[in-house]
Amino acid sequence: MLVRVAERPILDDDNIVLAPYIEAENGEIKYYEFNKNDPKVNFSDSRVIYVNDVMYLTSISHFRIARSKDGVNFYIDDKPTIFPEDKLEEYGIEDPRITLIDGVYYITYSAVSSQGICTCLIKTHDFVNFERLGAIFCPDNKDVVIFPEKINGKYYALHRPSSGSRKRNDIWMADSPDLISWGSHRFLIGVRNGKWDSGRVGGSLVPFKTDKGWLEIYHGATVDHRYCLGALLLDLNEPWKIIGRSENPIMEPETTYEKQGFFGNVIFSCGGLLENGILKLYYGASDMYVAYAELQVNDILSSLVKDGY
Amino acid sequence: MLVRVAERPILDDDNIVLAPYIEAENGEIKYYEFNKNDPKVNFSDSRVIYVNDVMYLTSISHFRIARSKDGVNFYIDDKPTIFPEDKLEEYGIEDPRITLIDGVYYITYSAVSSQGICTCLIKTHDFVNFERLGAIFCPDNKDVVIFPEKINGKYYALHRPSSGSRKRNDIWMADSPDLISWGSHRFLIGVRNGKWDSGRVGGSLVPFKTDKGWLEIYHGATVDHRYCLGALLLDLNEPWKIIGRSENPIMEPETTYEKQGFFGNVIFSCGGLLENGILKLYYGASDMYVAYAELQVNDILSSLVKDGY
Repeated sequence: MLVRVAERPILDDDNIVLAPYIEAENGEIKYYEFNKNDPKVNFSDSRVIYVNDVMYLTSISHFRIARSKDGVNFYIDDKPTIFPEDKLEEYGIEDPRITLIDGVYYITYSAVSSQGICTCLIKTHDFVNFERLGAIFCPDNKDVVIFPEKINGKYYALHRPSSGSRKRNDIWMADSPDLISWGSHRFLIGVRNGKWDSGRVGGSLVPFKTDKGWLEIYHGATVDHRYCLGALLLDLNEPWKIIGRSENPIMEPETTYEKQGFFGNVIFSCGGLLENGILKLYYGASDMYVAYAELQVNDILSSLVKDGY
Repeated sequence: MLVRVAERPILDDDNIVLAPYIEAENGEIKYYEFNKNDPKVNFSDSRVIYVNDVMYLTSISHFRIARSKDGVNFYIDDKPTIFPEDKLEEYGIEDPRITLIDGVYYITYSAVSSQGICTCLIKTHDFVNFERLGAIFCPDNKDVVIFPEKINGKYYALHRPSSGSRKRNDIWMADSPDLISWGSHRFLIGVRNGKWDSGRVGGSLVPFKTDKGWLEIYHGATVDHRYCLGALLLDLNEPWKIIGRSENPIMEPETTYEKQGFFGNVIFSCGGLLENGILKLYYGASDMYVAYAELQVNDILSSLVKDGY
């Protein structure tokens, strides 16, 4: 497993909050310093700091390999596997999602910097040598999952552009001839007023192929940032056509470790395994822990209803 | 010339502002109605209405052909040439920019809808038959200009994503194998505090090839929305490398028709011709008129200075 590790400085002074960043020239970690008594600065969200609506992060993230023989007990590498190094990664790299295509692992991830939030691509054959393939979606865009095979000669991906003009955070679909260049952007699903996914939606897992269609596990949050998981079923041949969608979450924060932590009431997944009809789901809980759950795929499929859009 | 025609309803009641849109199902123009006394609605910008920071447009735009024998006197077609028809175009289509490649005209334009601002692509051989090629940049993204030839086997474009998280409106570069799918996004130039382009920048004209490099005329605005034109010089073979940039505008609002109109203090161009060392520039003035100016290319080139990034 590739895990996101978020680090932040420990401080004696409770009045100070630091926003770490990497100097692209020399790779050193530096800090912007903010005072909690500064009325111009918004500290209401533990994950971010807003200064005149401009976002900084309170932690800086990288990726490490975690190894397991049973899928439950993991040993995390002592050192970072992939560390932010590009100017577009100066505030960190987050949320890796891995698609295996023809023996090559393609990893999409959010690259956060003073220029916004991009999605970049890395490929690897062995998780030892990594090749950076640049920014495949420009700011602000995250939650990119690439389908595991070509459909009618094209690669497909779900992505989540943010429209500032319309204050939207919806799931879109794009296609590509080469996994690097993406076009034919289509709106796929939006938020739903009054429901569990009223605030924002985004792709979570790489879609699984089932008899019924492509099964996508996505995340949705309310406007108050309660994050749950739901599902989408997409047509096998024309994946921009929606067959079904979760009316209610397939999973929501219930346990103490899901409700309380660095940022509570969050379950958020970037990966899982489908084995013998069971979805083995790895997910972040409260932006603090990595947890594990098993779901029956048939239960998910039978819970879906036709989406209105 | 392809001109953007913006239409808005004439009303007897000064207290009402209408935001037009097209119903995708039947192509009919409908209106959202806003009352000027509603404190939740922001009417300070004549071009747009903001309701809880969500943007609506006060006009709806389409494209018409304007014909001329001398480049100065134009006859505008009675009927629309390209009219919004897609769900992504429900609030109108704006700012066409035409690149001629191998005998085919490729038109990029902003498609505005309830889902945000995309850039879409249309191609035509004859300006009679048009083929829609979909959204090539997802929300929010506008000011896309495609270079007129491949560079080292790839197509290149300038684009202007908006980062809500960092409140940025900068010029980026992307490349493409097929003009439809775009990747390898790179930050190119940003706004400059205290200068004429402190608020936002975006590509304006399709880049011209000169001995010195690719010459791009771009627009910059202050945070108070005063729009000027400047220039960028980019390396011929590695166009993401900046050779020079305008310290001061090459052109700014000076005349009455540039300073006063539907939205004053704006000059904004989407096209021009390079003939005998003269840039023949067509531009919008005050979001109300189309005006014409001639600039010496050598004057522009010699005014550029090395950009700091």
